[in-house]
Amino acid sequence: MKYTIKNIVELLDKYNVEYHCEGKTDAGFDGFCPLNRLKDNSLTWVRNADNLNVDELNQHHNLVLIAEKGASIPNASFSIFYVPNAHRTFFRIVQELFAEMDPEIKLPQIASTAVVETEKFGEALYVGHHTIIEKSVKLGNHVTILNNVTIQGNVTIGDYTTIESGTVIGACGFGHYWDEDEHPIDVPHFGGVVIGNHVKIGAGNTISRGCLADTVIEDYVKTDNLVHIAHNDYIKYGAMLTACVEISGSTTVGKNAWLAPGTAVREGIELGDDIYTGIGTVITKSQPAGKVVVGVPAKVLRDRKKDEH
Amino acid sequence: MKYTIKNIVELLDKYNVEYHCEGKTDAGFDGFCPLNRLKDNSLTWVRNADNLNVDELNQHHNLVLIAEKGASIPNASFSIFYVPNAHRTFFRIVQELFAEMDPEIKLPQIASTAVVETEKFGEALYVGHHTIIEKSVKLGNHVTILNNVTIQGNVTIGDYTTIESGTVIGACGFGHYWDEDEHPIDVPHFGGVVIGNHVKIGAGNTISRGCLADTVIEDYVKTDNLVHIAHNDYIKYGAMLTACVEISGSTTVGKNAWLAPGTAVREGIELGDDIYTGIGTVITKSQPAGKVVVGVPAKVLRDRKKDEH
Amino acid sequence: MKYTIKNIVELLDKYNVEYHCEGKTDAGFDGFCPLNRLKDNSLTWVRNADNLNVDELNQHHNLVLIAEKGASIPNASFSIFYVPNAHRTFFRIVQELFAEMDPEIKLPQIASTAVVETEKFGEALYVGHHTIIEKSVKLGNHVTILNNVTIQGNVTIGDYTTIESGTVIGACGFGHYWDEDEHPIDVPHFGGVVIGNHVKIGAGNTISRGCLADTVIEDYVKTDNLVHIAHNDYIKYGAMLTACVEISGSTTVGKNAWLAPGTAVREGIELGDDIYTGIGTVITKSQPAGKVVVGVPAKVLRDRKKDEH
Repeated sequence: MKYTIKNIVELLDKYNVEYHCEGKTDAGFDGFCPLNRLKDNSLTWVRNADNLNVDELNQHHNLVLIAEKGASIPNASFSIFYVPNAHRTFFRIVQELFAEMDPEIKLPQIASTAVVETEKFGEALYVGHHTIIEKSVKLGNHVTILNNVTIQGNVTIGDYTTIESGTVIGACGFGHYWDEDEHPIDVPHFGGVVIGNHVKIGAGNTISRGCLADTVIEDYVKTDNLVHIAHNDYIKYGAMLTACVEISGSTTVGKNAWLAPGTAVREGIELGDDIYTGIGTVITKSQPAGKVVVGVPAKVLRDRKKDEH
Repeated sequence: MKYTIKNIVELLDKYNVEYHCEGKTDAGFDGFCPLNRLKDNSLTWVRNADNLNVDELNQHHNLVLIAEKGASIPNASFSIFYVPNAHRTFFRIVQELFAEMDPEIKLPQIASTAVVETEKFGEALYVGHHTIIEKSVKLGNHVTILNNVTIQGNVTIGDYTTIESGTVIGACGFGHYWDEDEHPIDVPHFGGVVIGNHVKIGAGNTISRGCLADTVIEDYVKTDNLVHIAHNDYIKYGAMLTACVEISGSTTVGKNAWLAPGTAVREGIELGDDIYTGIGTVITKSQPAGKVVVGVPAKVLRDRKKDEH
Repeated sequence: MKYTIKNIVELLDKYNVEYHCEGKTDAGFDGFCPLNRLKDNSLTWVRNADNLNVDELNQHHNLVLIAEKGASIPNASFSIFYVPNAHRTFFRIVQELFAEMDPEIKLPQIASTAVVETEKFGEALYVGHHTIIEKSVKLGNHVTILNNVTIQGNVTIGDYTTIESGTVIGACGFGHYWDEDEHPIDVPHFGGVVIGNHVKIGAGNTISRGCLADTVIEDYVKTDNLVHIAHNDYIKYGAMLTACVEISGSTTVGKNAWLAPGTAVREGIELGDDIYTGIGTVITKSQPAGKVVVGVPAKVLRDRKKDEH
């Protein structure tokens, strides 16, 4: 076996995680697995042990389970570590032990087919294939930009930020006036996009530049795939925009917001900090901080619970 | 004329299609057209002859109509073939007679600007321009990957599968834990994407790799454009995901499912085989097999009819 | 200061705009700003002066405000021009005075990494990096195609049309028949895409080619990002498709339609001219001209007002 119980104990000590260990103490493991695709010789974890199928786990060899402190798992013939925050602890352990298997970890490199016109970038830059970064772009340190990405216009990206493949940052926003012949004329978009530190932008996103000022995405914002962020939007610290979220122009999304998949938000409104939406929510007016809002059109359902994600 | 009634008869015999022919027997045709944009000298077809505007067809020269067996089209001055499954029969005939006009049919080729890092691919591979296929990818035989596509990480693609332009396969999934300072940290995604045979993935799709195991797309799955398939999803045999469908993480979509445009599906749930949704359906919990579900949130409306697409 | 009141007066005269000027007449300005991010020495504008925070504007130096004719803004210590159509007038002035800052204005150029296979294009073509334009494509004059764009199959694009980055035009439409073994077989798509003059297609769009005839997008159509236009669709003159709009196959969108973000439209239906939808509207059947329709499924709410955008 590549790893043993001892390796886990060392990491728990390193992170000052209090733990209680039960069961087989000489277990070893080569890899990891989720509960619904169990493999022998693996580390796994459970969020809520009440629903655990112990018999199924017992049929596998050399399983090591990370479970929540306070849970009770009787009749187990495998190893169990009870810890606070099992989710975080499990992923920290696999990140440490299996780092070389993580496709996200890249050596700094600019791919041969990438076009990097800017000279303003920091250390440890990674740029994937067929990506274009225009001259007017500024990049911080430890920036990772994957494949087939377009970054155009006045875009600034902070440190430790990652842009997934196929995303377009800095496209023209959507706005028009009508001339004397009733033809729609595109409003010019002079603004840029300012993206903070530790941000992750998913694949296939479109982030439009601002009209007269910048579109802003603060530190620790995370977006999933196919998210649209429009001109002049202001996405605050730590907001999470899941897949297929649409934020119309000149809208503010509050700190630590969690917008469920397919949430669409009208232009020019303000979502308070810590707002949380259900899947497919359509928001047509400003919403207060700290609420769960659901439906079409969205209504406040209740207060958001602490740590509700 | 390029083709005559005789060419149709030969193909119907080849495919063992029983038919009944009425009207002009010496008609010829050069091309094809849909009913709402009729052209002279064309082959066309009708799904439901009850609504057919016979007078309009009579005004065109040399029309040949494929209609459903059992239909009745009186007063027609054009040629009519009555066959079982007119839709299938019509498209088989045009596929055979006009194959050289089909942009989908490509000679094997790797475009000069494509980056194919993998050495694991079968015969008759087509790769379009500005596509990147990373070293860790495995491709079967007769795989077609069009333009500006990104395939990254541990992705396996089966035989006779096509990936349309602008799609990203193998992007990181969306998941986080929060560290002691309440900063969101990206959960590592070690899994890959396994795609079966005879699959077609549309343009601008994003398919995320799994977290601890693979995202799976079985044989004969078909997706339209701008579809999102998340980490750990399991899309079963023959499922049809139409445009702008969003499948959240760790969700199963049953065999031969038909998800209408804009359907969004919550994470961690299970949709039974043969499920069918209406446009814009938002599914918040698991759904039984064989049902039509509609609405926000989705409710079962009725049983799905045989051959309802 | 770079510009003064005099420069504005000259432009208003050039465009035959009647105006009334109040306040400081020797103001100068270097740039522009929106009302919610005021900067000294700037030109700005207001849509509805009733909600204007005059005290806040008074605290900035050298502001010049464009306001609607007939509005009243007492106690202002800054310069004000009252004009008809303040929105149009403001953007015309900034377009004229600050043209060199507009990233949209490009010199004709084909980027070194672009692949332009077609020889059928007019004057003043701009093609960005990693874009592929296949041999069968025809482009008019003054066409701008940005980065990582795919244009494949029989696509025609008219004069003064712009395609934003990451968009795919000419992908195969979504349609199938089932063979005798119940396998889904892709229906061939022989049609192309015909795009008119003065069209703007946003970033990350997917526009599928037609099946037996063409997908058509008429003059002055404008799409925002992540819009899907399916096979055989017919989008009429001046229609506006905002972000994440989904138009299913064989559907017609009427002239000067305004479809709000996230609107999804069922296949094979017809939306009348001047239709206007609310955000997240799901349209399941044809809709009459000139109406505002909202909801899931969509219902007519009222008549659309003149100039309602």
